[in-house]
Amino acid sequence: MTNRGYGFDGADEGCDYQAVNLITFTTDFGTRDWFVGTMKGVALGINPRATLVDITHEIPPGDVRAGAFALAASYRYFPKGTVHVVVVDPGVGSARHAIAVKTTDYIFVGPDNGVLSFALAREKIKAVRRINNEKLFRHPVSRTFHGRDIFAPVAAHLSRGFAIAKVGPSAPDFIRVPWPQPVVHRGSIEGEVIHVDHFGNAITNIDSESLKRLDKQSATVLVKNRVRCPLANHFEAVPKGKPVALPGSSGLLEIAINQGSAVHKLRLKCGTPVRLMQD
Amino acid sequence: MTNRGYGFDGADEGCDYQAVNLITFTTDFGTRDWFVGTMKGVALGINPRATLVDITHEIPPGDVRAGAFALAASYRYFPKGTVHVVVVDPGVGSARHAIAVKTTDYIFVGPDNGVLSFALAREKIKAVRRINNEKLFRHPVSRTFHGRDIFAPVAAHLSRGFAIAKVGPSAPDFIRVPWPQPVVHRGSIEGEVIHVDHFGNAITNIDSESLKRLDKQSATVLVKNRVRCPLANHFEAVPKGKPVALPGSSGLLEIAINQGSAVHKLRLKCGTPVRLMQD
Amino acid sequence: MTNRGYGFDGADEGCDYQAVNLITFTTDFGTRDWFVGTMKGVALGINPRATLVDITHEIPPGDVRAGAFALAASYRYFPKGTVHVVVVDPGVGSARHAIAVKTTDYIFVGPDNGVLSFALAREKIKAVRRINNEKLFRHPVSRTFHGRDIFAPVAAHLSRGFAIAKVGPSAPDFIRVPWPQPVVHRGSIEGEVIHVDHFGNAITNIDSESLKRLDKQSATVLVKNRVRCPLANHFEAVPKGKPVALPGSSGLLEIAINQGSAVHKLRLKCGTPVRLMQD
Repeated sequence: MTNRGYGFDGADEGCDYQAVNLITFTTDFGTRDWFVGTMKGVALGINPRATLVDITHEIPPGDVRAGAFALAASYRYFPKGTVHVVVVDPGVGSARHAIAVKTTDYIFVGPDNGVLSFALAREKIKAVRRINNEKLFRHPVSRTFHGRDIFAPVAAHLSRGFAIAKVGPSAPDFIRVPWPQPVVHRGSIEGEVIHVDHFGNAITNIDSESLKRLDKQSATVLVKNRVRCPLANHFEAVPKGKPVALPGSSGLLEIAINQGSAVHKLRLKCGTPVRLMQD
Repeated sequence: MTNRGYGFDGADEGCDYQAVNLITFTTDFGTRDWFVGTMKGVALGINPRATLVDITHEIPPGDVRAGAFALAASYRYFPKGTVHVVVVDPGVGSARHAIAVKTTDYIFVGPDNGVLSFALAREKIKAVRRINNEKLFRHPVSRTFHGRDIFAPVAAHLSRGFAIAKVGPSAPDFIRVPWPQPVVHRGSIEGEVIHVDHFGNAITNIDSESLKRLDKQSATVLVKNRVRCPLANHFEAVPKGKPVALPGSSGLLEIAINQGSAVHKLRLKCGTPVRLMQD
Repeated sequence: MTNRGYGFDGADEGCDYQAVNLITFTTDFGTRDWFVGTMKGVALGINPRATLVDITHEIPPGDVRAGAFALAASYRYFPKGTVHVVVVDPGVGSARHAIAVKTTDYIFVGPDNGVLSFALAREKIKAVRRINNEKLFRHPVSRTFHGRDIFAPVAAHLSRGFAIAKVGPSAPDFIRVPWPQPVVHRGSIEGEVIHVDHFGNAITNIDSESLKRLDKQSATVLVKNRVRCPLANHFEAVPKGKPVALPGSSGLLEIAINQGSAVHKLRLKCGTPVRLMQD
């Protein structure tokens, strides 16, 4: 893979990044309009060799925290050099900034509203740039669709190896969304549901590090202060229709029902309290 | 990019088109069946180098006008040479024709029922061909799925540079769906909602040219003959939960609610009257 | 297309398969989470040249038979050498096995729960392998997301030409889901609905071979033992709003309503009886 005419700035940013022509998209655009398609059209006009992957376009409209979580749960499964674009942007057209952030392994592009921050908290950051190089934009730039006019074209340029230093000036920092930390007591951990998935599983903020503090053999999980779930390793450890708590594929404790929907049956949603405790 | 063995007919059609191996899909197929996947499989069997982009598959079933609008709103964001396939085809298997249309910048493929007509109205047309070259089709040709058996394979051939002149005979014309023109009075414009989007914004038929006729500073918008909205440039120009009219990313006036759904709150749908007027 | 460094085992498996860097995905993951995206990220990390095509991600959760049907209805439209991955896997993390199956034209990867069996019933099978080569997996292997950690990476390796013999030991057989056979009487065929599609058409298990046994001119279809539908070749053979039975694009008899939803109007679902009979 070469840099195709750009002065690639691996050196000036002290970064070992190499363009791999891969861009992911995470948005709240839905799929019934032409919004995602037009972003891709713009990106392919700039980098015809790009491979484009959808993470999801079903982030609830304007839900920055949900977008931040989806990105954080997925970005690390992509090859080094991937450009991750996130457009959950309720403040589009207002004073909020657009940023591009280079880490040891990836480039992130999106509005500076915290939507990149869960992922960035896990990364070694090499450069934070405020996007203002209008030469990279699609013109005229609309006031309501920066995904098409700013984020997609900037990401496409970056996916070809364009120097991040040239997208705009260095930014001192970026906005962070607070991560809901579980509260660790002696013999118990107080957490909450932070995502409900398509299968009706509820992902909590209790991570595998926290799980290690307890003796799993004698631990149980209390959901909504009243429903007890055994701790297990897979769905079929409990009978069909019964709830179970298990370490999920994101490294976080999940509440599930074997062959059913815990979300519907137990009426779970973001914020529902989940307590892990020693019997 | 070469023509890979086809006699490319740039000359005989007087066209500067060059194949870029890019195909877009706009359909009413939904995403829960295998219909879109099979179209793509057929296309990749013919052009393995093709990049395939979904515009949307959620056009309401059989809604030719909605399909025409989605295509018109998106096709120009793709690189020159893109082949746009649209399959919203309530008359599949009946007497309606299939057409391929070459313009200065693009090729369009679909049923001749008007679904291509909003886009074509904005393009300089170089050739209109009735598709009847059965050598290009997948066989046996089903009576109900021309997307898979006719449109996808023809588009795939065209995306490689296959001569449009060889898909079938020249057609004198194509069917047009009437575009709902806004009515311009002295000091006001009577329009209507023509699309409601995923965010609950309502896109109207009042275009930016029409907007220029009025003094924006003193203009307001009246929705359903009773709800007044100020004219602004972005959502945050009004408080959260308040309606606003703004020039949308498609170049058309939109009715929105800051961080809310105008469609739900104001009960808007296609055809809802929207009047732009001088105070 | 070369094998890029793998010892391709066309010889030892007696197979003429050649890698085409094409992978399809059929799952029950839905599209609102990051699950499909992460599978693709893992696959592209292993085979950056892979083209990835979604069949559907809207198989009802855990519905192995629906997944088997979607695969069977679509896989043959892809070019020879395509790797088809199916992840409908209610037993993930339990004792069920993962398998890779090579046929004359394709490779199939998925859990050994019957989800591959409708497609495999139509194929000439060259090799069945139990997947247990952990060197191919993403680590750590989660207990609940083998799509990401086992199926996607194994499929990506196979899509590059990696020898199927090296994914694990030869398996004596694979699990089959019973196909609901129509019952053929003298002058009538008793079948049932096996899929309802996005348009509200109901696909039955009555195939074109069965149709040939009857004189189409004098045949009618009885749905739910009470609704009579004429047999025709396309939707518009009946007036708008009227039911019709026609040979569908999958080669199976379908019940439809011209410009309407047979599923809603006639309240059809999987298992609804459909009888084709001579008048």
